[in-house]
Amino acid sequence: MKRKLKVAITHGDINSISYEVILKALEDNRICELCTPIIYGSTKIAAIYNKMIGIPPVKLGQISDPGQAREGIVNIINVIGEDTRLDIGESTQVAGKAALVALERAVADIKAGKVDVLVTAPVNKNNIHGQEFDFRGHTEYLQACFRDDDEDTDALMILCAGQLRVALVTTHMPITEVSAAISKDSVLEKIEDLNDSLIRDFAIHAPRIAVLGLNPHSGDGGLIGAEEQTAIIPAIEEARKEKIQAFGPYSADGFFGAGSYKAFDGVLAMYHDQGLAPFKTLAMDAGVNFTAGLPIVRTSPDHGTGYDIAGKGQASAVSMREAIYAAIDIARNRDREDMATRHPLRRQYFDKSPDNVVLDLTKDE
Amino acid sequence: MKRKLKVAITHGDINSISYEVILKALEDNRICELCTPIIYGSTKIAAIYNKMIGIPPVKLGQISDPGQAREGIVNIINVIGEDTRLDIGESTQVAGKAALVALERAVADIKAGKVDVLVTAPVNKNNIHGQEFDFRGHTEYLQACFRDDDEDTDALMILCAGQLRVALVTTHMPITEVSAAISKDSVLEKIEDLNDSLIRDFAIHAPRIAVLGLNPHSGDGGLIGAEEQTAIIPAIEEARKEKIQAFGPYSADGFFGAGSYKAFDGVLAMYHDQGLAPFKTLAMDAGVNFTAGLPIVRTSPDHGTGYDIAGKGQASAVSMREAIYAAIDIARNRDREDMATRHPLRRQYFDKSPDNVVLDLTKDE
Repeated sequence: MKRKLKVAITHGDINSISYEVILKALEDNRICELCTPIIYGSTKIAAIYNKMIGIPPVKLGQISDPGQAREGIVNIINVIGEDTRLDIGESTQVAGKAALVALERAVADIKAGKVDVLVTAPVNKNNIHGQEFDFRGHTEYLQACFRDDDEDTDALMILCAGQLRVALVTTHMPITEVSAAISKDSVLEKIEDLNDSLIRDFAIHAPRIAVLGLNPHSGDGGLIGAEEQTAIIPAIEEARKEKIQAFGPYSADGFFGAGSYKAFDGVLAMYHDQGLAPFKTLAMDAGVNFTAGLPIVRTSPDHGTGYDIAGKGQASAVSMREAIYAAIDIARNRDREDMATRHPLRRQYFDKSPDNVVLDLTKDE
Repeated sequence: MKRKLKVAITHGDINSISYEVILKALEDNRICELCTPIIYGSTKIAAIYNKMIGIPPVKLGQISDPGQAREGIVNIINVIGEDTRLDIGESTQVAGKAALVALERAVADIKAGKVDVLVTAPVNKNNIHGQEFDFRGHTEYLQACFRDDDEDTDALMILCAGQLRVALVTTHMPITEVSAAISKDSVLEKIEDLNDSLIRDFAIHAPRIAVLGLNPHSGDGGLIGAEEQTAIIPAIEEARKEKIQAFGPYSADGFFGAGSYKAFDGVLAMYHDQGLAPFKTLAMDAGVNFTAGLPIVRTSPDHGTGYDIAGKGQASAVSMREAIYAAIDIARNRDREDMATRHPLRRQYFDKSPDNVVLDLTKDE
């Protein structure tokens, strides 16, 4: 597969640093040698930010459908009206609506196979939240968009930076609800999902997975909370029966500080801050949020809207650039894995059957 | 105050890395120029470890009471029998008992004014736990030892590494119980305690305190949990009315990764892993655990028993050495602060009183 992947980039919250990080990430035209970027946003707003943040003008080719996208340049589809009001650094309903329109259009296009991967710029959950977007974040929204009742389509949030990959059992959930969401089944499912993703999306054969505990000191053998004994350890044991290399539970505080994570391909944290606070500390500004478990590839930078520095030209585009790279890498890895496993060799041996069964050598098992 | 402080060092879990880190921290005799160390432990076990971990023999002066401690050498008080069984790398009841005996003796001596500060080596909560030690950790045990019903004597766990100081509202508490423990009063009390400690123990005038939220993204304005609105923000506002420079609540995941902590003298986290996972990631192996709010000074290294590397000579003594330094610094800061505020100047002005009140210039307000 030599053709360039079409990368849909949604503009996120127009009053945030999103346009700045998108434009900065695409500023160096060499990115168009890797992929064909398509911004879902507004040419007018892009032009305003391009001037404001003081980088050389990024040449944008306006198109109305991904089918028209040209290789070698940054394409943009206008998804909102020319009169959309900017209030830089402010949270407004207009921006929430604009963010949602871009997301909906990009999801429709990726569903229709018009673009290959999705990279989302940050939105503000407070203004995007409403009747049409009753979700706590992109991850939950996309999970609903691609829900398939016949298959396990639960999304898994994986934060990546280099060799460090942290997945979460629970995501944007209040602390009070976390314990109830930690069961043997939920932890096992996430271990399996992480294992699948490490194999298929990150091309790691037989990945090693570290599972963190829920409570301080991983429960200290039951002295501080019981979930390790009732849910996490049974889930790890079950996973090992399935030949998944799962280890733990590890105490979250020491695990990152002592550098233990370096011995693993993936880390499964029980809740948001437990995984993300140390992850972001280690990743600095190069972290990428990847939503595994979906039929499509979606990444995003791991930062928020940054209203306080919006429009000032201070935002770092490292995370956005890494998100684009990661989306491309993951899509390529998936293709390779799918290609390699599409037509497996026929089994060259046959199980011994009882004597009264006639062996049918024409049957493909 | 020029005399050297007597530093009581409890031996912790005898089967752990505790003797190794103590001996390594005291290996360089120049530490005796700063203080007079007194190990509460066993000369026999110290000698065994000294040989095993392959460092030059640390000269130990055996005494039976801190009053006999000699300056310039490392003193040791035998608190357990010669026949105490070692099972290196194992958790045993014998070790739990031995750890408790040392702790009890050291606490008795510091209460009696025989030693100045307390540094504790790691214990294993599973084997020290029992009828006589029904606590989740040193912090809770010491809080009970020094409880004074007339005063606010709630202990506050502060983790320090250089200019980074992280305090916890809740410590060794299961995640299920955390939310119930977060109230306006509990958060406000910890803000005040942290403020007091930063002033008195760390000699920071008008410290700046960052308060973290409880939920992911600090609750995202109420979308993910309510404790920020009902408890944390009101506590911060109340603290500011008391002229404490408290800010927040900040989202825990981005706060450390973005380096925001550098703008503050202290950080108040809501629970164990939220504060400690990023703290240890930043502190590497130089973190110190300080128990503020007690009438005595107590520090400890921020690592655990490390059974897996016990007796192998691989443990780093940096954290133990920093714990000794910190204990000395904090005791000196406290003395200076107490000295400076012991006899405040009489006020040089008098409030205007109503005309019917006779001004009494002899009264000391």
